[in-house]
Amino acid sequence: MVDTLPTVGFIGLGVMGRPMARRVLAAGFPLVVHNRSRAPVDVLVEAGAEAAASPAEVARRAGIVITMVPDTPDVERVVAGPAGIFEGIRPGSVIVDMSTIAPSVARRLAGEAQARGAAMLDAPVSGGEIGAIEGTLSIMVGGDGAALERVRPVLEAMGRKDRIVHIGPSGAGQLAKACNQLVLAATLGGVSEAFALARKAGVDPARVREALLGGFAYSRVLEVHGQRMLDRQYVPGFRAALFDKDLRIASATLAEHHVPAPVSAAAQQLVGAMMAAGEGQDDYSAVARVVFRLAGLDA
Amino acid sequence: MVDTLPTVGFIGLGVMGRPMARRVLAAGFPLVVHNRSRAPVDVLVEAGAEAAASPAEVARRAGIVITMVPDTPDVERVVAGPAGIFEGIRPGSVIVDMSTIAPSVARRLAGEAQARGAAMLDAPVSGGEIGAIEGTLSIMVGGDGAALERVRPVLEAMGRKDRIVHIGPSGAGQLAKACNQLVLAATLGGVSEAFALARKAGVDPARVREALLGGFAYSRVLEVHGQRMLDRQYVPGFRAALFDKDLRIASATLAEHHVPAPVSAAAQQLVGAMMAAGEGQDDYSAVARVVFRLAGLDA
Repeated sequence: MVDTLPTVGFIGLGVMGRPMARRVLAAGFPLVVHNRSRAPVDVLVEAGAEAAASPAEVARRAGIVITMVPDTPDVERVVAGPAGIFEGIRPGSVIVDMSTIAPSVARRLAGEAQARGAAMLDAPVSGGEIGAIEGTLSIMVGGDGAALERVRPVLEAMGRKDRIVHIGPSGAGQLAKACNQLVLAATLGGVSEAFALARKAGVDPARVREALLGGFAYSRVLEVHGQRMLDRQYVPGFRAALFDKDLRIASATLAEHHVPAPVSAAAQQLVGAMMAAGEGQDDYSAVARVVFRLAGLDA
Repeated sequence: MVDTLPTVGFIGLGVMGRPMARRVLAAGFPLVVHNRSRAPVDVLVEAGAEAAASPAEVARRAGIVITMVPDTPDVERVVAGPAGIFEGIRPGSVIVDMSTIAPSVARRLAGEAQARGAAMLDAPVSGGEIGAIEGTLSIMVGGDGAALERVRPVLEAMGRKDRIVHIGPSGAGQLAKACNQLVLAATLGGVSEAFALARKAGVDPARVREALLGGFAYSRVLEVHGQRMLDRQYVPGFRAALFDKDLRIASATLAEHHVPAPVSAAAQQLVGAMMAAGEGQDDYSAVARVVFRLAGLDA
């Protein structure tokens, strides 16, 4: 049974990519991996994957090629740069970019893939490192429906079946991810401000959180990140520097479409203040510290 | 058994007060009611309650007196004004103000009640008209713990046991309610802006909502109010005019404690724009319309 599964290529073995690639391998797919630095490749090879020297080589050896790299320029380089995927891609192959990048670039690269007889899906994820390890990621997919059906068994190795959502055509997955980050930013901001008020007024924010969890103010942010704010436990999780990057993409996309967004814009300013304070390596929920400092509280 | 239950007084039979009083009556408590207008009193009397001509008379006849009126000045009038509760209050009685008012006024009135040998709790609620009808309100309580234990059986007729949270001393309940409204405002703003971006970019906001519900962006606001935004179904629910009032209290409280809150402040501006547009009678989730209009979308 295993040898009937298609070979999958995986490029980008960072904090998210490593556990995602492991799950694809564990699901029985023959796996070819590439990464800029060698160490994470060796770990995957020990687990049964094969190494490729370049993204082009991955594309020559695998009909399904997944990319999971930090930012828009990284995807452009890995896909369309020298020794990139486009140099090795075979007609009929499917590229699945699971990084979080600009929707406009996702659309452009998908068009270039199509010109080469291949398909390219944008399929960014939400759920963080824990979701990657446990295979419970949410996956927001933009692009051709038939290409999605071909790669769905691979996506199901990384995400929960009911959380793999076909949002729309190319770029729609990235657009949904931008929406996701805007909602997260606004909610984190609101929870941070509420906790700052409670603390400053001498009220226990843990009691406030408990009360709010029972009503319409309930959010996963209040539950999970709110607890982190109470514990002041900001080991990522999801690094603020990446959240800042995602929000830059989201705000550029808002501007491109002329959508004023005062609430999430204010939240983005607070995340920017984390970067200004050199706190980009902390979990993004540490944005609460920015608000606590603004309020003159111990952070 | 029923005749051993203490008599409860209920002042303020509006959209929330009516179903709350009904539940107290249904739980077997002898009930004395008062309201500025007579019609809702007659309905309760038909159901078995007795009518009182003034808040003072309610306080003379009931050892537990609940108030549920729209705003801070209404509570001040009903409690401390002419023919108010303080004129009839008996030593040992407990006043439970379930309205949403300024925490500072809640603290002051509780002090005045104490000087009269009575206790006064602030116990604002969250959960809306449906929560009031079903008796599933969240109740955030500030004030003396012993007084809370005395009235807890009455509160349990209106709220879920595990959602009756003693936040802290007088005013702490109102402080938690302010936090609740700040979090709601920020979350509503973020969801509205995300939906505006999706619509403007030609992506189905229903698909975006579905994808986001599966991850960290999940909130009750996204689930319940997000669906209202998609359906453009803005029959309250919770009137925006009352939400605007609550946010004025919250922002005054933030200012009093010198807590800068840029995210929820931006959200409050959007709610203010609903009022400017004469939309205060619509559900508060209609704040999405403000964002849609800003983005040049059909609202």
